[in-house]
Amino acid sequence: VTPRRVVIVGAGFGGLNAARALRGADVHVVIIDQHNYNLFQPLLYQVGSGMLDPGEIAHPVRSILRGQRNLEVRLGTVTGIDLAARMVTTDKGDVSYDSLIVAAGSVTNHFGNAALARSTNGLKTLDDAIRLRSSVLECFERADEEEDEAERRRLLTVVIAGGGPTGMEYAGALMELFTHVLPRDYPHLDFSAVRVVIVEGADRLLDSFHPQLAARAQRTLRARGVELVFGRRVVDASEAGVRLDDGTTLDAATVVWTAGVRAVSLGGSISDRRGRLDRVPVRPTLQLPGQDDVYVIGDLAEVASRSGEPLPMLAPVAIQQGRHAAKTILVQMSGAPAGPFRYLDKGTMATVGRNQAVVQVGPLRYSGFVGWLTWLFLHLLYIVTFRSKVMVLLNWGWNYLFYDRPIRLITSPRARGAEDPVTPQETSP
Amino acid sequence: VTPRRVVIVGAGFGGLNAARALRGADVHVVIIDQHNYNLFQPLLYQVGSGMLDPGEIAHPVRSILRGQRNLEVRLGTVTGIDLAARMVTTDKGDVSYDSLIVAAGSVTNHFGNAALARSTNGLKTLDDAIRLRSSVLECFERADEEEDEAERRRLLTVVIAGGGPTGMEYAGALMELFTHVLPRDYPHLDFSAVRVVIVEGADRLLDSFHPQLAARAQRTLRARGVELVFGRRVVDASEAGVRLDDGTTLDAATVVWTAGVRAVSLGGSISDRRGRLDRVPVRPTLQLPGQDDVYVIGDLAEVASRSGEPLPMLAPVAIQQGRHAAKTILVQMSGAPAGPFRYLDKGTMATVGRNQAVVQVGPLRYSGFVGWLTWLFLHLLYIVTFRSKVMVLLNWGWNYLFYDRPIRLITSPRARGAEDPVTPQETSP
Repeated sequence: VTPRRVVIVGAGFGGLNAARALRGADVHVVIIDQHNYNLFQPLLYQVGSGMLDPGEIAHPVRSILRGQRNLEVRLGTVTGIDLAARMVTTDKGDVSYDSLIVAAGSVTNHFGNAALARSTNGLKTLDDAIRLRSSVLECFERADEEEDEAERRRLLTVVIAGGGPTGMEYAGALMELFTHVLPRDYPHLDFSAVRVVIVEGADRLLDSFHPQLAARAQRTLRARGVELVFGRRVVDASEAGVRLDDGTTLDAATVVWTAGVRAVSLGGSISDRRGRLDRVPVRPTLQLPGQDDVYVIGDLAEVASRSGEPLPMLAPVAIQQGRHAAKTILVQMSGAPAGPFRYLDKGTMATVGRNQAVVQVGPLRYSGFVGWLTWLFLHLLYIVTFRSKVMVLLNWGWNYLFYDRPIRLITSPRARGAEDPVTPQETSP
Repeated sequence: VTPRRVVIVGAGFGGLNAARALRGADVHVVIIDQHNYNLFQPLLYQVGSGMLDPGEIAHPVRSILRGQRNLEVRLGTVTGIDLAARMVTTDKGDVSYDSLIVAAGSVTNHFGNAALARSTNGLKTLDDAIRLRSSVLECFERADEEEDEAERRRLLTVVIAGGGPTGMEYAGALMELFTHVLPRDYPHLDFSAVRVVIVEGADRLLDSFHPQLAARAQRTLRARGVELVFGRRVVDASEAGVRLDDGTTLDAATVVWTAGVRAVSLGGSISDRRGRLDRVPVRPTLQLPGQDDVYVIGDLAEVASRSGEPLPMLAPVAIQQGRHAAKTILVQMSGAPAGPFRYLDKGTMATVGRNQAVVQVGPLRYSGFVGWLTWLFLHLLYIVTFRSKVMVLLNWGWNYLFYDRPIRLITSPRARGAEDPVTPQETSP
């Protein structure tokens, strides 16, 4: 008998945990992703600020799942799902399934605003982070040469649209870079011109956290020099900077867009109904309505929580849903019905930078140094491989002790032959 | 009195050591490079084979030279040098000098062959190494899906043109990756189809080493499965593979070009005479003929050795020349004449991979495990920063113990928005 084919779309937190939960089971698992690596997104902002190397937060999927004999990894971009034919189509060919777990995640959401898509930098993919690191550092190089004061100020201004955890953590990391590291690199540059501005539509940061914790984070950020603009949205961006919804403009060379994500468009090929942020509404069991063999999990799935609100787009949700979907498939194979998914909220946290993080676990809320240690410990714990734990810990220790960001590299792949600019005629004989 | 302006073009081994040798001197130093980092080229092949992260061999120039008060770092591409006006022109503006050290290095040499420039991958820049890593790994992904046997063999064949240290070290590292690491990633792939072929025009590898050492390296490489083709040159390359000068063709998806470098074209703006490989002939003092204030060093300079042959394009030559040029400038300032440069050959070495390297120091020649330990120790010693020494040592230890290459990442910056392939209409509203 051919074992049941379980196809998993996406090797993020959700897909990976689904795959692991199927280890040793009597199924054949195929996991498909457009990248050959799993990205530890919670630390992406540290690549974007020169603290970590890409290899420390990106791990080859084949490594992670090595030794799982019932499993096959495919590198490919999923272009559609045919529910009737039970088929996943990819740019490398079709893959048939008996059971399907769609864990394709989310992408940066510019809300259809082409100017924002063109002139802002996301912080969602590894390429985003490397490009952002290069771009910020390049601005300092240019500022160091710039005679015009207004232009220098523009080069030294970073606007971060969005005051959620990503925007806040990146702001804190950047401010540390600008305050403790770069002044030693640019001894002649006037650092009083440096600005990091968070623009947030709500009236506070971190709307998923308790107001007291948000207030604490805001105090720390402001004390460290980050400017906070509340009740405003970035509605336009260009080379020159941004325009807010009240007409104010801010001159800024770097605009980071962390103000929204949405579920991937792939959702459209499995569901006519789309929830908030394009998520796909699923049953409490995580099954697609009318499709007992199709599970949708993670950022892509809209699942109601006990409060009635959809569960947030967070790693712990995806992890638990991945395990639930995998186990439910095994339960179904034994003839039993699928049970509902219950999210166990283990708490959330975010760091403001050195020595400061906010943590909430159920009714428990704390911040400061103890919060920061909690943040450090738990993030280290969840980093996917042992080697990366060691490397990340060393980098953190180095950064903490020496106020250094060793990976301040401006890298941008150029065309072949571009290294020798004087006579690039070599390639055209 | 304004201090003398010493401009250094290039922050490679030569330029960096010139800058360091001017520390504390009564001069104003400006060092210009197109990258903001110094690249430790001897370990570039380890980035290209997934062993090291870019941040471990690339170090920000500003970090390395931090605290040197008489020094200014500029990021820019030098487009020309005007000897009459004593001016260096860059894409970011002109820089005047009193003394000039040109250490602009070398680039990959395709000998004017456009097909080779287009269809082969160099191993000279950080981008080269990252692109090569991605490209080799992507071939394995495609081979794993490929039904056609001939095409699968093509995907699994790497041809390395050039049997110098770079080609040989990369061949050894790749073979280790293909033998010990990737078979666990692709349990269903037939690895007997994997080929690594070095094509070398001479009748042996490592023509700068003693024949006995070359023979030893060749035996080891062959025992590990690397094929060696001598007396042949790659004269054409395409998607399909390569053609050799005797008409033989080899189907190969990856072609690495390490068969030649040449001095950068910038040499043309300071000298009408060009030596072998476009190098600029200089006086024994390293001064440009007729220009007492212009020094040319490193790969760009053609300096006769005691044997009459030009000194090789090697890091130790550039390092010693950098120091010599810097010191000579200080000597000149005191009114004394410039003295000749003498190269102290401390020996050369190359590793064949795990447990095997060839070392020659004057009349002393050895290889094997002791050679390998020497190679490890000296490379660690020369890595520019303490932090990188620790990181590289950890990575090497990890690789040695677990036969792992943790940084097997396929990364290729895509256009913004390309992460969500189904409906990329978002950017055009």
